[in-house]
Amino acid sequence: MAIAVRSVEEVCRQAREASRALARASSSLKDAALEAIAAALEARLPEILAANELDMQAGREAEIGDALLDRLALDEGRVRAIAAAVRQIASLPDPVGEVIDGRRLPNGLDIRKVRVPLGVVAVIYEARPNVTIDAAALCLKSGNAIVLRGSSTATHSNEALARIAAEAAVSAGLPTGCVSLLAGGGREELAELATQRDYLDLIIPRGGESLKQALQAVATVPVIYAASGNCHVYVDAGADLDMAEAIVLNAKTQRMGVCNAAETLLVHERAAEEFVPRIAAALSGAGVLLRADPRALVLAAPAAGAMAEPAAEEDWATEYLGPTLAVGVVGSLEEAIEHIERFGSGHSEAIVTGDAAAARAFQRGVDAACVYVNASTRFTDGGEFGMGAEIGNSTQKLHARGPIGLRELCTFKYLVEGDGHVRA
Amino acid sequence: MAIAVRSVEEVCRQAREASRALARASSSLKDAALEAIAAALEARLPEILAANELDMQAGREAEIGDALLDRLALDEGRVRAIAAAVRQIASLPDPVGEVIDGRRLPNGLDIRKVRVPLGVVAVIYEARPNVTIDAAALCLKSGNAIVLRGSSTATHSNEALARIAAEAAVSAGLPTGCVSLLAGGGREELAELATQRDYLDLIIPRGGESLKQALQAVATVPVIYAASGNCHVYVDAGADLDMAEAIVLNAKTQRMGVCNAAETLLVHERAAEEFVPRIAAALSGAGVLLRADPRALVLAAPAAGAMAEPAAEEDWATEYLGPTLAVGVVGSLEEAIEHIERFGSGHSEAIVTGDAAAARAFQRGVDAACVYVNASTRFTDGGEFGMGAEIGNSTQKLHARGPIGLRELCTFKYLVEGDGHVRA
Repeated sequence: MAIAVRSVEEVCRQAREASRALARASSSLKDAALEAIAAALEARLPEILAANELDMQAGREAEIGDALLDRLALDEGRVRAIAAAVRQIASLPDPVGEVIDGRRLPNGLDIRKVRVPLGVVAVIYEARPNVTIDAAALCLKSGNAIVLRGSSTATHSNEALARIAAEAAVSAGLPTGCVSLLAGGGREELAELATQRDYLDLIIPRGGESLKQALQAVATVPVIYAASGNCHVYVDAGADLDMAEAIVLNAKTQRMGVCNAAETLLVHERAAEEFVPRIAAALSGAGVLLRADPRALVLAAPAAGAMAEPAAEEDWATEYLGPTLAVGVVGSLEEAIEHIERFGSGHSEAIVTGDAAAARAFQRGVDAACVYVNASTRFTDGGEFGMGAEIGNSTQKLHARGPIGLRELCTFKYLVEGDGHVRA
Repeated sequence: MAIAVRSVEEVCRQAREASRALARASSSLKDAALEAIAAALEARLPEILAANELDMQAGREAEIGDALLDRLALDEGRVRAIAAAVRQIASLPDPVGEVIDGRRLPNGLDIRKVRVPLGVVAVIYEARPNVTIDAAALCLKSGNAIVLRGSSTATHSNEALARIAAEAAVSAGLPTGCVSLLAGGGREELAELATQRDYLDLIIPRGGESLKQALQAVATVPVIYAASGNCHVYVDAGADLDMAEAIVLNAKTQRMGVCNAAETLLVHERAAEEFVPRIAAALSGAGVLLRADPRALVLAAPAAGAMAEPAAEEDWATEYLGPTLAVGVVGSLEEAIEHIERFGSGHSEAIVTGDAAAARAFQRGVDAACVYVNASTRFTDGGEFGMGAEIGNSTQKLHARGPIGLRELCTFKYLVEGDGHVRA
């Protein structure tokens, strides 16, 4: 963890070396290393809090704002929660070695498709220091070395956390270089990291649109971009309106600033007259501003008053991540699917319906990572899906779509066994 | 198929539109379209041969050489073979709709992970016109629209084949735009194609290193690069030398110009004294030049004479694709694995051994798409692996590794069903 003196390339090269031993590490060794990390986080709490205080002071001086300061802050409770998350990851099944597929071929060769680690994963992230440990634990559990690059705001916190994790992992028997942190240099360092094709197998950025664009411009290493979610709830004709109200409220208001929260409500015209006034009252009562198309606005305005406004074209494409919801009335299920095709980001889409044919048509017709029938979009989450944990959510179609859990941090290889087989 | 008048963007946009209907097409409709394509290829044979003759004339005038002319040439037998391959693809199981995983979650939600088409796949290829039809058939069968970009050498052949395929597919009921061919413009057109992020889901280049580098410089659409294969056969101490000889000869000489042919032979020092002279005699007798390290050269030279030469450092990294084989002696299994780690391309690697522990250590320690025990590397192939057909071979780790068959041309989505579930 001599951060300042090693080049990006040197850090990545050492991670590649570590990855070879990590790929062969037993589940029990990896789990022991995660337990050692959790215990070290608890034992070295004062060191972590002291480092965090340096970042907090710098953040206050730089006036980064209360929201960012809150994301940055660590206290005993938060550190214990981070340690608990590490132990929870240790308790998950090891994805490495899982036989995905296999058979005896007609020529007598036995073939198995077996899950193996990717190798070296780089994670680029902003503010929250807990990502340092979450990402490291997920990568180690899946047999990958990790190269971390946090934000400069959290330098001291990340450095303390990464040092503690690396020392604990190595003391438990994992190879030096299994966890590394790069000092958060500028765009030059980012470009250097993103082009280490010989040493990195994957980059996962967890940050906003500017990080995504910066990476797209330079990366030659494969990147899985975490999602932006422009998620829709469509209330079909004849839907159970109690259910529809509960789902819309949950999808919009249970937690607003997350990628699986709803940003647009579409209502079938045959349900609109009854449902739009009702949901407008409920949402405006919950402090949600409605940006409505003309048909929805007429129905929403009496209930929502000033909390209902005309929608502009860009509202349909906006991920508000806050207390605003676009609302439209559609003439048919097909129109709803077309709207989602045009404006959706391929994250999570839901239909509320009592009609089996409509449910099937929606699930087949909507091209998104997760398509829900009669359930809230908020369930898109590695934990909720039974993956145990996730490092992010992918809206791309290659390799990982939806939650990126331990399996998605793996690739596979074909193991083929014969007794002298040659090709004719 | 109005090739000249539409822009790259317009072609890709229409393919995207077609992909929506294709994703919902039934297996029987897709199979009927493939049968229509096969029948049309046979019925319109004179049109295909006339177009091919134009390319052949131009090729002869441009003196492209006999090897390229042979790759370019079509005759009745070759066209019938292309049609037969289409029918074979039609006979494969439809990957779309396959349930990959699924369960009931503790909260009662039912979740299924279901295979769905990627959407629009672009295939960029050189010379051989049969790729036009092979790639189109694989994409249509897997529910994807395809945008083809062939080489200028085969313009007329590709145009005839793509036109016939598109017309037959549409006449069978598939949407217009399901098969398109771009005129093989220059690097500008390539860059335009490689940046159609709104419309393309994947680019598969089938060509040499220069195409790969050109794409890497500009592509923002995800690309799966087909493999270069620097494949090794390692003959362990105590291996059955009859078996070793048969496997090495097969891996090197059964077909030389392919990515799964062996390019380096490594021999354990305890097997070298007996095996190297023997395999040197057999290989040199088959016309293979040996580029040997000092220890191997001493043993090979008496048997191979002038067909054994000292290896230079670059030999270990060379994919000869012809009658040359690098040969080295190693002190241990670990040394063999390290050599492969350093020089291998992650394609196909084989060990010949009678030792169960060595077999297991090799399969675990070698990081490649396909790792063989006592079998030739030449089996790495979608057809041999029971996938029915392949569009190429991937040595990258994300999404597809090894043969790219129908399943690898798909992504998946999560279908989640509840009865009013909201997140607590």
